[in-house]
This record gives sequence, structure tokens and C-alpha cells, in this order.
Amino acid sequence: MRTIKLTVEYDGSDFSGWQVQPDQRTVQGEIERALETLTKEEKRIVGAGRTDAGVHALGQVVSFKCHDNLPLSAFEKGLDGLLPEDIHIITAEEAVESFNARRDVVSRVYRYVLSKRSRAIGRQYAWYPGMKFHVEPMKRASKFLLGEHDFTSFCKSDDQHENFVSRVLKVKWNVTEEEIYFEITAVRFFHKMIRIIIGTLLEVGRGKISPEEFVKIMKAKDRTRAGSTVPPQGLFLVRVNY
Amino acid sequence: MRTIKLTVEYDGSDFSGWQVQPDQRTVQGEIERALETLTKEEKRIVGAGRTDAGVHALGQVVSFKCHDNLPLSAFEKGLDGLLPEDIHIITAEEAVESFNARRDVVSRVYRYVLSKRSRAIGRQYAWYPGMKFHVEPMKRASKFLLGEHDFTSFCKSDDQHENFVSRVLKVKWNVTEEEIYFEITAVRFFHKMIRIIIGTLLEVGRGKISPEEFVKIMKAKDRTRAGSTVPPQGLFLVRVNY
Repeated sequence: MRTIKLTVEYDGSDFSGWQVQPDQRTVQGEIERALETLTKEEKRIVGAGRTDAGVHALGQVVSFKCHDNLPLSAFEKGLDGLLPEDIHIITAEEAVESFNARRDVVSRVYRYVLSKRSRAIGRQYAWYPGMKFHVEPMKRASKFLLGEHDFTSFCKSDDQHENFVSRVLKVKWNVTEEEIYFEITAVRFFHKMIRIIIGTLLEVGRGKISPEEFVKIMKAKDRTRAGSTVPPQGLFLVRVNY
Repeated sequence: MRTIKLTVEYDGSDFSGWQVQPDQRTVQGEIERALETLTKEEKRIVGAGRTDAGVHALGQVVSFKCHDNLPLSAFEKGLDGLLPEDIHIITAEEAVESFNARRDVVSRVYRYVLSKRSRAIGRQYAWYPGMKFHVEPMKRASKFLLGEHDFTSFCKSDDQHENFVSRVLKVKWNVTEEEIYFEITAVRFFHKMIRIIIGTLLEVGRGKISPEEFVKIMKAKDRTRAGSTVPPQGLFLVRVNY
């Protein structure tokens, strides 16, 4: 049996997120449906990151098992042609049979894009906070995210996880004329984690809390002390490392 | 009586173009409706460029007459708040009473964006031709557009114009990792002119015609000899000069 690995780009604007849900338009649902048309087999696919409604992907990774011997081009150009235009297959590759796009992840890279101004063009791909803020203190505060921490303060609580411990490997900022890019690499991400981190960093940027208070909030393991959850449209799953 | 000048950004994706048409969602229609809500007066506005369905604007210019003495901020932030999110008011200014956004134009700047690859994110803002082409011969051919010419070969014929003579002041190319930007400044643009120019330049880029044949096509004043009209989503009205 073959295992196929896809790298997929999508515009999350018109999806109820990645994961299949009854009567909802989801990325997983659309890809499974297109694969079934292509292979005439029922297909279950695994995605590296379960992105929420409105969240985009530049490099989501997908794996699935395959009985037939269709050429890889069928899973690249062929599948791409069967998908709606807000999903695009970048590459299809042959993986080792045991490969699982979710279980085998070493780290994921996400990006959040803040717009410096209100805008019509590209409003689906960046969020404008509607107030003044300074990036430098946000940069300083974000350095404290590096390393292993319990991120309970920055996560939506759920029943799926025993703890909210992760290891942040890298944070990176890029400021252009129109936008502010924040990129974070970590071994695990929890539900709403990046959007709550950005909401809290913006409180630092507005001078409501200091970078040192940001650390205290993180260490408190108390969601009620952190900032609000920023909207999904600024968030991108950039890359998955194996 | 006051004359107000607005600079407006819009995402053309979900509009049937600029100009008011019965039962269609148009940019002019939306702005007039919002202005009527704001001023409680029926308003007719004039736009510098009548963009087609799917064409975007980074700096469309609008003028209208105004009897009341609302502060400029009402026409900037206030009006912006009354508009759908795919239209954004960048600035509102007081103009001389005689100012007319269309009649007083000295030149307009348009941009066409070609994507180097098929994509999901940003597909509304660039067009991917789906084939290989070379930019260098396109650049060479585009230099022949400079100066005063009869652009009949590159225009959709209509009954409104006695001739299709314009003067192209500038052409500019910018090639990035993902996109190719073509910017053209001219004193007049005719219907579909830029999209037919790009369609013909792409034939040069694909090696189907030489830059010298491009000139011959231009001089022939015969629309049937030029290339096809490329899709609207790559086209932006960038700036209007007065």
C-alpha cells in the first residue's frame, strides 16, 4: 500500500475550518470528496494542523493511504483540477508507508499578519487592530515565549489535552510598510494559542502591560489574565517540519 | 457649495464594476447609498476611472457636490463605517468648487499583476496565465507603447469615442519571486485596453510574436490582430494624477 503526502495551500475565508463537520464546507471535506472522485474509493485524510474557520494555509501537509497506482501527477495537477479554486495542491509526493502527517510532525510554523491600516484589498489576509501600538515592546515580550512552557494562559481550555506544555523554537518579526508579520515555530500548538498570544502581545504594544507582566501572565497559567483572541483572518499555517 | 474629493480603495471581486447599473452591486452605487444615509440628500458622484467588474482600485478618486457643512471626518471615518468592508475611504479632502474627478484627470496609473504560479491565497489579486513565458521580450515590446498612438488594435470598439488616440507616459515592470507587475501611466485609457495589451504582450512572452510584430499590430489599428483580453482580477487602478 502506498502513502501519499500532499502539500496544500488554501484560503480559509469561506471554510468552516479544516476538520470535517456535518453540513459544513471544510477543507478536509473538499479534499476527501475530490480524492474520492479521482480514485473511486472512500478516502480519509490526515492533516498536520487542524486550522480553524477563516485561518489560511500556505503549506498544510496531508497524508493518506492509497491502493491504486495512479501517477503522482494525478494527485497534483489532476486533484488540483477537481478542487475549488480556494484550495491548491502544491506538490504530491510518495512517502514511506508508515508516514502520518499529524503524528510525525516535528514542528509547525505559523504566521500572524497585522495590518497597519484599515483596507479593502487583502482584508482577508491580515487583521487591522484599529488602534495605535508599538512593535518594539511586543518583540521584547515575544522572546519570553522561547523554550518550554506551560501555555495554559494562552490556550482555550478543552478536554483533549492533559496539559498545555509546548516548546517554542523560534519567533521572528518582519515589519513592512503596510504590515507586521509575526512567525512562531513550536513543537505543539493548542486551540487558539497564537491568536491569544497576539491579543496579549497587542496589550503590550498598547502599553497596557509591560513585557515583564506578559511573562507573569504566561507563568500564572490562567486564561482569564491574558488578552482577547484576535480574529482568524491574519493567521496562516506556513510550514510543517518532519 | 462645497466639492468633496475622496480617495477610495476597493476590492472589485464582488462588484459588477464601478458604474451604477440596475439591480447590480456596483462601487458607485454603494458609495452613493452610503452618502445618502450620511447626508440625507440624494447624491451623484463622479469617479475618475470606470473600472470593470472584478477590477480593483488602490486609489480611485471621486468627487461630489455637497450642500451641508459636515466635517471632513464624516466623509472619511463616518462614510467608511457606512460602507461594506470591500470599499475603504482612504482620505476625504475639500476641493475647489469646480473640481470634477473625471474631467480634470491629467493621467491615470494602472497595474496588472501576473502570478508566476497557480494559487489559492491572493487569487483575487493576480492572474496566472497557466503557461510559461519570458518577461524580457515583453519588457522590450512594452517600450513601443510610449508616446502618442492610435490604440484601436488594443481597444474594445464602442460608439462613445471618435478615436482611440492616447499618450502613454510611462511603463514600468517589477518582477518579484511570486509575481510580475506591469504599471502603465497614460492620459486616457479605453475599454479593455490594458487587458488586451497584456494579452498581446503575453503572446510576445510566449514567443508567438516578436516585439517588432507587436508594433506592427499596434500600427495596424485592427483589434482582430491583437491578443485576447486577460481576466480582470489582475488589474488595479493605482493612482489618478490631476
